[in-house]
Amino acid sequence: MQVPTASMARPGTEQDRGATATRLLAAASELMIERGETEVSLADIARRSGLNSALVKYHFGNKDGLLLALLQRDASSALKVLDALLRFDASPTARLKLHVAGIVNAYYRSPYLNRLINLMLHHRGPDIARSVSDFFVKPVVEFETRLLEEGAARGEFRRVDPLIFYFTLFGACDHLFYGRQALLHGFGVTEVGDTLRRRLIAHVTDMVLGATLARED
Amino acid sequence: MQVPTASMARPGTEQDRGATATRLLAAASELMIERGETEVSLADIARRSGLNSALVKYHFGNKDGLLLALLQRDASSALKVLDALLRFDASPTARLKLHVAGIVNAYYRSPYLNRLINLMLHHRGPDIARSVSDFFVKPVVEFETRLLEEGAARGEFRRVDPLIFYFTLFGACDHLFYGRQALLHGFGVTEVGDTLRRRLIAHVTDMVLGATLARED
Repeated sequence: MQVPTASMARPGTEQDRGATATRLLAAASELMIERGETEVSLADIARRSGLNSALVKYHFGNKDGLLLALLQRDASSALKVLDALLRFDASPTARLKLHVAGIVNAYYRSPYLNRLINLMLHHRGPDIARSVSDFFVKPVVEFETRLLEEGAARGEFRRVDPLIFYFTLFGACDHLFYGRQALLHGFGVTEVGDTLRRRLIAHVTDMVLGATLARED
Repeated sequence: MQVPTASMARPGTEQDRGATATRLLAAASELMIERGETEVSLADIARRSGLNSALVKYHFGNKDGLLLALLQRDASSALKVLDALLRFDASPTARLKLHVAGIVNAYYRSPYLNRLINLMLHHRGPDIARSVSDFFVKPVVEFETRLLEEGAARGEFRRVDPLIFYFTLFGACDHLFYGRQALLHGFGVTEVGDTLRRRLIAHVTDMVLGATLARED
């Protein structure tokens, strides 16, 4: 991490430093949503936040550090839901439904989330890929694997491959948030609003149950 | 389109020109698969093909033209399947199953296909977005809308929103092909082979039927 220089705003109290980091993350998030892009420059983030771009280096080390902090901010509420679901006293089927809604809601709040994860998994080198994997991919895969095993043990679920389950579920939830062009050209729709969010949850829930619930025959 | 210059290989016969264009597309496709990236430079495509990069300008006008030609090459077999399915004398359910397999098989052959479509829809300007939409998005949406209507009219399907159907189906099929890192870190798997392809088709088929077939109650 670069040592702060005299050209930077004085960091001030611990609380000020937290507020500055929060503003930088909010600026990065806003730009990604507006542009439908995860590739935003430090200069643009600084301009939007009204802060000096040197503060990015001070708070996050570099752009990768800022992207990782943004991912942690956005994904942590989704991961908290998983954590609660692990301890939640309800059937595997009920928890599976809550899991689907949790994923769609996370993408609804942060439509760039899956692109940010993929950017960091595939284009920022092996160390960043490992961080994202440890922070996000592994906990989700472990949660889903346990849920699928528990559901099968109770006779609610058929045997399902956790790998296929993971990729099809995240893909089905994410693709609507990818970008405006297919929505616009294919359907004349300009944004994903609350009605579409609720219809997406209902549809993906039906899809996932259709491939997971124990067969009747 | 740029006028060919003396530094270029002589274009030769019509057949030679076709062979040259084919080699350039094959080189671009190979590089995208190897790198897991759609961003490949003209210089790299030229180097891989053993041809002069000026030939890209001669055959395709520019890089966008080459990318559009690659998309047409890769998506056209998938679109031919759709065309055949429209005339195929089988139940909507049987045609829906063939449609799912067709999409997965297209991604299996060209794992970069959805990224290439998204690159051209979102990052190459409105004219390219419109071309891709007219060539690919609209025919698929029209096919699926007709199939869903026919299935509902025959009592095989429930009423399904074509927009939600389109995005969840393509997302569920595509995500496994996105990149190697989540596969590797989450599951210790290094590539999508034929077994995984078949399991993906079976799982997505169950998902789609679960959200499409008429409810029993």
